[in-house]
This record gives sequence, structure tokens and C-alpha cells, in this order.
Amino acid sequence: MPLAEKLATFSEHWQPRVVAQFNGHDVMVAKVQGEFVWHRHDETDDFFLVLAGRLAIELRDRTVELGPGDLFVVPRGVEHRPVAREEVHLLLIEAGGTPNTGDAATAAPRRVI
Amino acid sequence: MPLAEKLATFSEHWQPRVVAQFNGHDVMVAKVQGEFVWHRHDETDDFFLVLAGRLAIELRDRTVELGPGDLFVVPRGVEHRPVAREEVHLLLIEAGGTPNTGDAATAAPRRVI
Repeated sequence: MPLAEKLATFSEHWQPRVVAQFNGHDVMVAKVQGEFVWHRHDETDDFFLVLAGRLAIELRDRTVELGPGDLFVVPRGVEHRPVAREEVHLLLIEAGGTPNTGDAATAAPRRVI
Repeated sequence: MPLAEKLATFSEHWQPRVVAQFNGHDVMVAKVQGEFVWHRHDETDDFFLVLAGRLAIELRDRTVELGPGDLFVVPRGVEHRPVAREEVHLLLIEAGGTPNTGDAATAAPRRVI
């Protein structure tokens, strides 16, 4: 499955698309730009792999800067805020059904492509 | 974490290196070339993302061809054989401690870098 082809099918930011299932997890691609909200996931680690662009993942005590081919796992329970100064393409993996904001009330729906 | 830097630290084929932990899974990079053994994992899906090169994943009924940026998940219990005609760089994710051959007796040790 070419991830670039999946990314070419949509343009909305902060709206991950599920491209595969893996051991009860959703494997997703996303386009992001701008500042996301501070949030945490108490029940799942949060997997980020940058496919294109540069992403800052702000933690309360430091900021992790990621470029293409860089991977970072935010441990469960750790507050974080992704910030993209430009459009960034990501591969994300989370436990199935995890709200992307950490709160079901404000989360983007999970869409499968 | 730049995956390319991790890949530059070793040259052995079919010897995955653990670069991160994610929800009880090992996130690994590997260099592969040639034909691996036919095997299956009964307890875990098998996540492949090609970072460089071209990989064929032979299944009993078809072959999946993957290039850079292509992702494929082999469902648990499905026999498969990765074949790399050239050196291929991979991101792999498996449940922690999964033997890469499906058999602890023949598996490569898990090394963390």
C-alpha cells in the first residue's frame, strides 16, 4: 500500500485516515498544519513517523523536532502538543478508537480509506 | 529519532534492531537482502514499512510488492516469506519478543540500539 497515494486522496488537516489495522491498533496517515491542542492519552502510547515536512512535538519539559524519516513515541499519560509550521504528512498508530484529542467529545472521526 | 542514523549503525541482514517501544510492541529497523524463510506468527500481526529498496512479501496465494513508503500488514497466522532482490531497509513492528522466524529456536536475538 503506497502511503503517498493514500495521502493524495484528501486535504483536510488533523483528520487522520485509517489505512490498516495492526494488532488492535489503527494505522493512519494524516496531514497536519498549525498547532494542535495540548492533550494526552492515558490508555495508549502515541506513535508518530514523519513522512514529509517538519513536526515539533511539544512536551511540558522539552520539544522534540522531527523531520522526514524521524520517529517518536509519546508514552501514555504524557501531555503533548504537535505543532507543524508547514504542512506535515504523518504515519500515526494508536490503539483502535483512541480519540485524537484525548477526548471523545472533540476528536476527529476515524475514517477508513 | 532519525531512522537513517539507526540504520547506519549496523550492516547485518535479517537482524532487526529495536529502536522504540510502543504499547508492548517492539518498533525495529532492519536491513534485509535475499530470501527469508517461510514462516508465520500465530500471536501477532506483522507490520512492514519499506524505507528504502523494493521488497516482495510472498504469501501462499499471491506476492505483495512494496517500494519506499509502502506499508503492508501480514495478518497473524498467515504464512509469508519476505524476499529482497537488493538490500532493503525496513521499519518493522511486532509484539514484544516475537521470534522473527516464527520459531524461538531459529530467531535472531532482539537487540536494542
